[in-house]
Amino acid sequence: MPNHAHHQRRRAEFLAAINTPVLLMAGGWISRNYPANWHPFRADSTFLFFFAEPEANAAALFDPKDQSVTLFLEERTQTDALWHGTVPSFAELKKAIGVTAVEKRSDLAKLVSKKLGKRKARTLGIPDQRATAEAIAITGNAVDFFDAAKVGDVDLLRTIAQLRNHRHPDELAEMRLAAAVTREAHTVAMARTRPGIYEQELVGHVEGTFARHGCVPAYNTILSVRGEVLHNHAHNNLLKESDLVLLDAGAERASGYCADVTRTWPANGRFSPEARDIYDIVLAAEKAAIAAVKPGVRYRDLHMLSARVMTDGLVQLGLMKGNPDELVATGAHAMFFPHGVGHLLGLDVHDMEAFGDLIGYGAGRKRSEQFGTAYLRLDLDLEPGMCFTIEPGIYFVPAILRDAKFRKQFKGLVDFARAERFLTMHSLRGFGGIRIEDDVLCTDTGCEVLSECVPKERLAIEALVGSAGA
Amino acid sequence: MPNHAHHQRRRAEFLAAINTPVLLMAGGWISRNYPANWHPFRADSTFLFFFAEPEANAAALFDPKDQSVTLFLEERTQTDALWHGTVPSFAELKKAIGVTAVEKRSDLAKLVSKKLGKRKARTLGIPDQRATAEAIAITGNAVDFFDAAKVGDVDLLRTIAQLRNHRHPDELAEMRLAAAVTREAHTVAMARTRPGIYEQELVGHVEGTFARHGCVPAYNTILSVRGEVLHNHAHNNLLKESDLVLLDAGAERASGYCADVTRTWPANGRFSPEARDIYDIVLAAEKAAIAAVKPGVRYRDLHMLSARVMTDGLVQLGLMKGNPDELVATGAHAMFFPHGVGHLLGLDVHDMEAFGDLIGYGAGRKRSEQFGTAYLRLDLDLEPGMCFTIEPGIYFVPAILRDAKFRKQFKGLVDFARAERFLTMHSLRGFGGIRIEDDVLCTDTGCEVLSECVPKERLAIEALVGSAGA
Repeated sequence: MPNHAHHQRRRAEFLAAINTPVLLMAGGWISRNYPANWHPFRADSTFLFFFAEPEANAAALFDPKDQSVTLFLEERTQTDALWHGTVPSFAELKKAIGVTAVEKRSDLAKLVSKKLGKRKARTLGIPDQRATAEAIAITGNAVDFFDAAKVGDVDLLRTIAQLRNHRHPDELAEMRLAAAVTREAHTVAMARTRPGIYEQELVGHVEGTFARHGCVPAYNTILSVRGEVLHNHAHNNLLKESDLVLLDAGAERASGYCADVTRTWPANGRFSPEARDIYDIVLAAEKAAIAAVKPGVRYRDLHMLSARVMTDGLVQLGLMKGNPDELVATGAHAMFFPHGVGHLLGLDVHDMEAFGDLIGYGAGRKRSEQFGTAYLRLDLDLEPGMCFTIEPGIYFVPAILRDAKFRKQFKGLVDFARAERFLTMHSLRGFGGIRIEDDVLCTDTGCEVLSECVPKERLAIEALVGSAGA
Repeated sequence: MPNHAHHQRRRAEFLAAINTPVLLMAGGWISRNYPANWHPFRADSTFLFFFAEPEANAAALFDPKDQSVTLFLEERTQTDALWHGTVPSFAELKKAIGVTAVEKRSDLAKLVSKKLGKRKARTLGIPDQRATAEAIAITGNAVDFFDAAKVGDVDLLRTIAQLRNHRHPDELAEMRLAAAVTREAHTVAMARTRPGIYEQELVGHVEGTFARHGCVPAYNTILSVRGEVLHNHAHNNLLKESDLVLLDAGAERASGYCADVTRTWPANGRFSPEARDIYDIVLAAEKAAIAAVKPGVRYRDLHMLSARVMTDGLVQLGLMKGNPDELVATGAHAMFFPHGVGHLLGLDVHDMEAFGDLIGYGAGRKRSEQFGTAYLRLDLDLEPGMCFTIEPGIYFVPAILRDAKFRKQFKGLVDFARAERFLTMHSLRGFGGIRIEDDVLCTDTGCEVLSECVPKERLAIEALVGSAGA
């Protein structure tokens, strides 16, 4: 039985912040192949923020007029006891959850209409398209989950984001637990690594570890010796002696809170000289960005700082040429670091990404048009309680480093000939990529690294790799 | 790279069997919390039948007029190489897959209209509601995935079922591989079992084993010491010395083909005298039903046969009273065996359940209204190539055995007082339930048990339980 006290407080804060009724849907079971065979149930994140472990198909009406919260649940039937065992009654749940009333889900439209009269409720688009269609029919809001500009009323989104973006201690406790499970999964994967096995086998150890602790992957696990393919969800490669294994995987707890951690290690347990050099540059960039976290800092500056540190390192390795500050200004670093340094993290691994840049970008700020920085998902001034990732990386991507346009644009700034050697090393498989990612909480005075527990120092990693034996 | 030859033959068979064009959709990524965070992609089962490892958002137009198959795929973009690595071109795929043409997905509506002119295509409702809406708009068929009566044209469903229900050797090879992974998962779970751990830990071993082999759970894993709760997906119980662990879990391969196997074992590795008696009855019922499988046999008769064997055993144990045949005729066996003995198995774990009893029930046959047998999902005359499960079970369900209506209806036929002792044993946790389930292929002369590899003899199970140590 989850503890509902924290969620009750959040509902009270929400009621105090809204001036019109709000209807929220949890969403239901999403069919996988036939109607009764579902993906594991996952409630909408905003619903999870307000209700601990909600039932599928739940809905809730928040009414600021009488400060009421009405929860709608599927009616209990006699056959429930046969197929699903004993289910708590509405009266028991009303008391345990601490809501004003619990009503039958089948009465949702009728009771909302009865309670609100001529007043209109606002709502949100959620992943479950059938639930969204129902919410649209009831509220008249033409919301669209797949269009951030139409997912909900701007004021409503901002009100929800203001609450979701400042973590209470109970939320942080969940995130630390997700990080602890994630630590175990990463260390198991490192320990099981050896040349001659398939990536898929390590994925099994990662996801099996999550499942043993009642967690699911917060996102589709990336585990690849082709770390330079950024969104690589295939796991068909055989590990070779010279490979680097990049694992980007995080556990999500039943509460919905998650972790998002990346580590990179050598398949044979020893960083090659080239890998060691690149690893140390990425780690220095990650640590520099983390060290700079404190309230008031602009997140984009952390992105630019990590780009600056990596550019400095790449200049020292001879892969870039010139003054690092000037190189970063041109965007040349994106030839090796083509993505943003991180994103919000919470109930979604890209927290509130469904709400669009309205939430991730500060007022008046918009995305850069420069290749690389254009992918930065977050540009807020940090405040205590915000959680986000810091995840710099250096990659040798053929599609970038052999691109004629880029080769012309960054001629003289990037040593493409030297980079080509990284693309063709290891019997043409190439160097791949290295990313190091942690989960960071902005505190009153600086930051706490929630995922500090996952090994990332080179010697610690080398000691772990292969330690589980054959 | 999958082998496309088998699927090409199936497409040819389908083209030969249809007399109007048919548009099939694979379906796309289904969002889990924000639009870009998806459940693992799973194509519609009928699409998987015709195409090996299809891409998300694929669609296919089958036109019997010119015997053509046009495959529609998402256009390749320049950023694909950055985010997703090298993707085969349309020309490469046309050759490898063996279709008439490969076209851009964004041209689907336009090219279908152009090719068919005034002719109309039929289509199917699939789990992806957005893809279904698109297919409805293109074909004008008002299909509804969630209503078996509207999921597609009856002739089209029968044509597809005729193909899907008779397994070719390549399909059986996939199902045997799924069974082999399932065997490993079940034996790992048995080996890891010991009192004092949580059910969830064993689930992690099961699903981690699936993942190590590139498989996913074909359905949400049931692993519970409360085996009498038939659809129990919670895994929060601590295993006690006296518990029986019921595991109902099957692996699904990337091809979509799956297994569905149930085993039940004692948490402490030794069947109690009561558990041994019940186990032997269930196993006898399972073996009797399997032994009776051959072409021409009515599946419902297998259900009644297993009910008969279990009733006989329960009479011998004093839990039922009277002549077994007469008891089965009254439906009294459903007090302990309240579900059907199995279902079709293939690309869906309940194969083609989306198509409704049209497929699972023979012409002119409909569901029994008797409690228990009403849940029988299959009532066909068996033919070579059909695959299905055989899964009898005996459960002590409080909601049934304490039901006043049933106690009156079956007074004198069921010894409810004796049953009550099973409900309250083991410090009131009760006996629980035992189910044994295997996957069976009807052959020309009898049957093959695809999942025979999963241990089910009592001594074999006792030797396995706890063998992994602490």
